[in-house]
Amino acid sequence: MSYSYVSHLECPKCHKTYSDQEVQQLCECGAPLLVRYNLDEVKANWKKSDLSTRDTSLWRYHEVLPVRSEENTVSLGEGMTPFVHMKKLGQQMDIPNLYMKDEGIIPTGSFKTRGASVGISKAKELGVEQLAMPTNGNAGAAWALYSARAGIKATIVMPVDAPNITRKEVAVSGGDLHLVNGLISHAGKIVGQLVKEKGVYDASTLKEPYRIEGKKTMGYEILEQMNWEIPDVILYPTGGGVGLIGIYKAILELKELGWIPEDKLPRLVAVQAEGCAPIVKAWEEGKTESEFFENSQTSAFGINVPKALGDFLVLEAVYKTNGCAIAVSEADLDKAQKEVAQLEGNFICPEGAATFAAAQNLRKQGWIKENETVICLNTGQGIKYPETVNIENLPLLEPGDVIKG
Amino acid sequence: MSYSYVSHLECPKCHKTYSDQEVQQLCECGAPLLVRYNLDEVKANWKKSDLSTRDTSLWRYHEVLPVRSEENTVSLGEGMTPFVHMKKLGQQMDIPNLYMKDEGIIPTGSFKTRGASVGISKAKELGVEQLAMPTNGNAGAAWALYSARAGIKATIVMPVDAPNITRKEVAVSGGDLHLVNGLISHAGKIVGQLVKEKGVYDASTLKEPYRIEGKKTMGYEILEQMNWEIPDVILYPTGGGVGLIGIYKAILELKELGWIPEDKLPRLVAVQAEGCAPIVKAWEEGKTESEFFENSQTSAFGINVPKALGDFLVLEAVYKTNGCAIAVSEADLDKAQKEVAQLEGNFICPEGAATFAAAQNLRKQGWIKENETVICLNTGQGIKYPETVNIENLPLLEPGDVIKG
Repeated sequence: MSYSYVSHLECPKCHKTYSDQEVQQLCECGAPLLVRYNLDEVKANWKKSDLSTRDTSLWRYHEVLPVRSEENTVSLGEGMTPFVHMKKLGQQMDIPNLYMKDEGIIPTGSFKTRGASVGISKAKELGVEQLAMPTNGNAGAAWALYSARAGIKATIVMPVDAPNITRKEVAVSGGDLHLVNGLISHAGKIVGQLVKEKGVYDASTLKEPYRIEGKKTMGYEILEQMNWEIPDVILYPTGGGVGLIGIYKAILELKELGWIPEDKLPRLVAVQAEGCAPIVKAWEEGKTESEFFENSQTSAFGINVPKALGDFLVLEAVYKTNGCAIAVSEADLDKAQKEVAQLEGNFICPEGAATFAAAQNLRKQGWIKENETVICLNTGQGIKYPETVNIENLPLLEPGDVIKG
Repeated sequence: MSYSYVSHLECPKCHKTYSDQEVQQLCECGAPLLVRYNLDEVKANWKKSDLSTRDTSLWRYHEVLPVRSEENTVSLGEGMTPFVHMKKLGQQMDIPNLYMKDEGIIPTGSFKTRGASVGISKAKELGVEQLAMPTNGNAGAAWALYSARAGIKATIVMPVDAPNITRKEVAVSGGDLHLVNGLISHAGKIVGQLVKEKGVYDASTLKEPYRIEGKKTMGYEILEQMNWEIPDVILYPTGGGVGLIGIYKAILELKELGWIPEDKLPRLVAVQAEGCAPIVKAWEEGKTESEFFENSQTSAFGINVPKALGDFLVLEAVYKTNGCAIAVSEADLDKAQKEVAQLEGNFICPEGAATFAAAQNLRKQGWIKENETVICLNTGQGIKYPETVNIENLPLLEPGDVIKG
């Protein structure tokens, strides 16, 4: 019985393989690497029923995670986030089986934590002492805090316009925080330079192979919470798209393990904002890669990614599952955020709100059928984006005043 | 087999009993009411092992919660929050078995959610259409969002100085938000007037009997996560003190159920800030009730409660468990917040930080022994208090700049 059944790393483009027991970044061909496991051995040694006695962090799936020794896990109890029936909103949208996977309810308040926990655990196992990454905010916060726990120095470079709260999270962790008067692409170049000159570990999206493994646990959890029944549709707010790639990877692994039926796949939907929709454009044109989306902008800061390194993997997941890609307007995502709060009681982030707006549009178009089981993925807490709620002209009471109703 | 084994309500002061099947607020004598269960029946019908197949919300303990019909539960998947070993901080503090129960990792981001979920579920069961409460922020946010889910109108009155993010949470829920140019006591009077004139349900702390029942699930969870072994010390940041009362109630119930040993109690510690320490003063003087603490102030806004309605219950829990009450300085709680982030990777709230500062002081005094198991309760996320982290003079890079190390 092994803690992990990790086997090796493999390039999904040129199929060259690498060892997971030394530091690897991208493949020689420039593509991101994927982690492979000895799934036959996993199948022989691990049963669904083993899960019932395990704790509720994502490490409950350690057999299919890349960390070989339990002592290297860096965990704050992240995982088994709520899976909530959105009854009233579903009724309104004519999707009675509408659910939300709520990734806001996790340490550091966003789904980025999964990638950080697994990525940093593996970095620790490999003896990494310093890492660096560009970020639009949430990833930097998660990686800085988990790095602090691991005793790794984290150099985080963030646009000056990234959400203020994420900046505070990096600062409180004691992380090496830098602001740049530009976009995430400028931050990326600064990190690239540091990596080249100082040999620092590059923790940029998909430039290390382990973040996906953390993200894929969303797929494992959704299936476990659905009692291993496959939902019809999963909608995911797509910037870098690592979560979507991860969920697809989870489904393929679970099929190999025989834990879910062979004959069905959930249709995966890549949701973007109209102001930054490179994946949607590529999908509409039937292409396998996206082009740089010029002058991108959206209030959903986390999905303002004009060109994702893993775009080809996102599009593959969408095509192979008969999914689709769809862009929503700023007005629609703003409206969806308020509806979710007022009908269901969740204060979700704008990126998560985009998935509800998309579900509504897809239902209206008939792409989603009435009785299908539909899962919207909320990637973070609304409280990290207080500016999305405007309060103006609120009357100020004086002591002794009376409320009328 | 019943969903709930609730029996009735009882006054802990005059022992008068009431039915839970109609709206009750305080006892005629002015004391808060406690919920009683048919624990013999629970014992006969419910086993620890039943928990392994239940979902991870606090409703896993429904037999000892007051909601009679499952359909009335208002849940966003709250509960089973992380229980984290604080290894490095514990080493530094000479408390190797130091743990944190992290109540920030829950919908709405604070422990107030537990009271809201159970309190609002019971309000829904009783047919309540409108409720009102004064709040220092987090409770109002939780009750407004859960009220939205339940379809109950929530009137929330909050001091204008309460944390800005909690105001946004009430607003996004569509709640009836009022700011008052004063303290929570002024807000309380405005709510009292509304309750009196309009017959609105009074959801103020301890003025309805069910919030404690939500809070007590912290105690059930701590014991379950400790595999039903009793810890030596639990430290709790004490404002209204409902959580401490709830944890003590949980322990007494678990003893009656025979789920934990008869012969040991955890020592419960009420932690306050030096700027607002009425319980500490009462405990030091050996009294059973506290006095109003004049001119209270602390950055830990949630424990700025100069006189708690349930003070006598808090003090009883402290006395009966051989616990203590201790006040910490603003400097110590600020320092503890940074240490927790930098050593352990958690961005906790100032109230939670107070418990770590207190544990350190109690260890230095020898009140906590080296090998004791000590649990600090963090009541909320640090990101709800971004102002506790100052970032000044952070250099701004320009695109193309280089980082030195």
